[in-house]
Amino acid sequence: MRVILNPKHAEHVPPGEMEGGAVIPSYEAPGRFEVIRAALEAAGGFRFEEPPKPSEECVTAIHHAAYIAYLREASAEAKRARDPAAKQLWPTVFPFGPNPRATGTRALRGQFCFDTYTPILPGTFASALGGASAAARAADLIADGAERNVYVLTRPPGHHAEHDRCGGYCYFNNAAVAAERLAKCGPVAVLDLDVHHGNGTQHIFYSRADVLTVSVHGDPAGLYPFFSGFADETGTGAGLGANANFPLLPGTGVKEYRPALAAAVEAVRRFKPAFLVFAFGADAHESDPIGGFTLPTKFFAEMGTAVREIGLPTVIVQEGGYNLTTLGACVTEGLKAIDAN
Amino acid sequence: MRVILNPKHAEHVPPGEMEGGAVIPSYEAPGRFEVIRAALEAAGGFRFEEPPKPSEECVTAIHHAAYIAYLREASAEAKRARDPAAKQLWPTVFPFGPNPRATGTRALRGQFCFDTYTPILPGTFASALGGASAAARAADLIADGAERNVYVLTRPPGHHAEHDRCGGYCYFNNAAVAAERLAKCGPVAVLDLDVHHGNGTQHIFYSRADVLTVSVHGDPAGLYPFFSGFADETGTGAGLGANANFPLLPGTGVKEYRPALAAAVEAVRRFKPAFLVFAFGADAHESDPIGGFTLPTKFFAEMGTAVREIGLPTVIVQEGGYNLTTLGACVTEGLKAIDAN
Repeated sequence: MRVILNPKHAEHVPPGEMEGGAVIPSYEAPGRFEVIRAALEAAGGFRFEEPPKPSEECVTAIHHAAYIAYLREASAEAKRARDPAAKQLWPTVFPFGPNPRATGTRALRGQFCFDTYTPILPGTFASALGGASAAARAADLIADGAERNVYVLTRPPGHHAEHDRCGGYCYFNNAAVAAERLAKCGPVAVLDLDVHHGNGTQHIFYSRADVLTVSVHGDPAGLYPFFSGFADETGTGAGLGANANFPLLPGTGVKEYRPALAAAVEAVRRFKPAFLVFAFGADAHESDPIGGFTLPTKFFAEMGTAVREIGLPTVIVQEGGYNLTTLGACVTEGLKAIDAN
Repeated sequence: MRVILNPKHAEHVPPGEMEGGAVIPSYEAPGRFEVIRAALEAAGGFRFEEPPKPSEECVTAIHHAAYIAYLREASAEAKRARDPAAKQLWPTVFPFGPNPRATGTRALRGQFCFDTYTPILPGTFASALGGASAAARAADLIADGAERNVYVLTRPPGHHAEHDRCGGYCYFNNAAVAAERLAKCGPVAVLDLDVHHGNGTQHIFYSRADVLTVSVHGDPAGLYPFFSGFADETGTGAGLGANANFPLLPGTGVKEYRPALAAAVEAVRRFKPAFLVFAFGADAHESDPIGGFTLPTKFFAEMGTAVREIGLPTVIVQEGGYNLTTLGACVTEGLKAIDAN
């Protein structure tokens, strides 16, 4: 399988995250990329390459111009800063309401972000754009028919990133970049199996009939992102019926996951898409520190088989997965099953 | 001068605040109340009393019922918790958009708060309600004509608290409680001289013609709350023209402050109110750790004189002021000038 690497991932190194009145080490760290790459190299059968030079063109179709400009400028501001504390831009005030006044730097930080986990750092813009560019390259290879399946190995992840907001460790929505590109050539389904609901992907396509978004994840009543991913969110306007959520309870294991996965796959099939984007989180694994599900490593092969059996040209985009000991094996199992003949 | 004390202030003890990727000691602490009380006792001429038993009735007119219920229940949840970390409820995810889905506990924390400075603690509800009750009691004494000036000594402060959101150390908007109560007896002006813009007070009365809100404060382009307090915010609907902001640059001293204060007083006079609520922050003092202005202690007497010369029955509500060494003197200077004959 061809693997498109984000060449800039290591430029984004979160110093921590603000959780419950404390600063804790960030779960989203460069080691995630390295353990996946090492596992794929050890498994064999994967060809690694970098995308062409990153360009903002690939994100303008799905992200707000002011948000893109903010990410670019805030990253540059962090890079210029000399004081170590000023090299991390954290939101502290979150403007609200229909028309918030957010003109100054400090208000913009909260206007363009929705949580306390997603700081802007000197390398954030370059790193996020590297991931989006890798996703765009993968989509182009699939759209052209050059490949059947292409995997995008990237971090930070993307599926929580909204049209105009970062959040959940995500800045640019890589899966949405791929889906948007493929949608020019035919209907697209996005299947998101990260344990957290892909709110950004859902919202970006929520009123569109040409991109189906389907997600199996932890019930947002108790799991991040908390405010979206409920079963009654089914799309709006032209997109009504083109979104399907399968929230599952904490502690979900194979027995509970399997029927939800089957229902999600069936929803994809009914849509009759021409292309699939698989937002592949490995954080539903039993060892994940923030997932709360209990799937064993070998179940990721079953996920991969389900994706393969959909029978579509597929872009696989790396989302979450935070246990560095098991992450590589989970991803390898899934990808090998997708590529099996 | 009669002083209505918040008898429950000490039940709210913030463990810190989340600022720029770090947890720092909270500026808003019980010592603020104690130093003011001690300074007033030393100065003489102040009679201290507690309000009648606090009741939710005094906040229902200005705060959303769901927000009041949230504050009550979240405080009870913190009180019940055994794990020390679970005794602090911090928002981490801030639902956004016109109709956010915020049904679970974690989403509500961000739905009902707009910053990372304002946790819910076991005593938050009781403490905030104690302050609101003290403000209501002071307003009743003024409305009845029993007193000419009454001072509400309370913390946490109130002027950042919105109709349905806490923020800026504030939970219930004490100045708005007083103004709402007085408005039943005649037009009311709120004059806010805290160095931070009183966004909550402004917004609560933004579309009303019977309550004027006027504020002199640091330019929100660079100072908290960042998203409101600009000069072009003048009210809406029936309230158009009944809001006036006088933002001033960082470093503002007497020379720059004096004309803004005069203009604010003139705006109050033009409105021809029957009552005044003075939201009295002492954080425009040169020693304040988070204000950025350079007013000397003796200028607070000038503020008090300006308030006295407006010539209205006045409820004075304590807002910010975070230097424990100078806070007591600033407040005493102001109150003595208001009460001078």
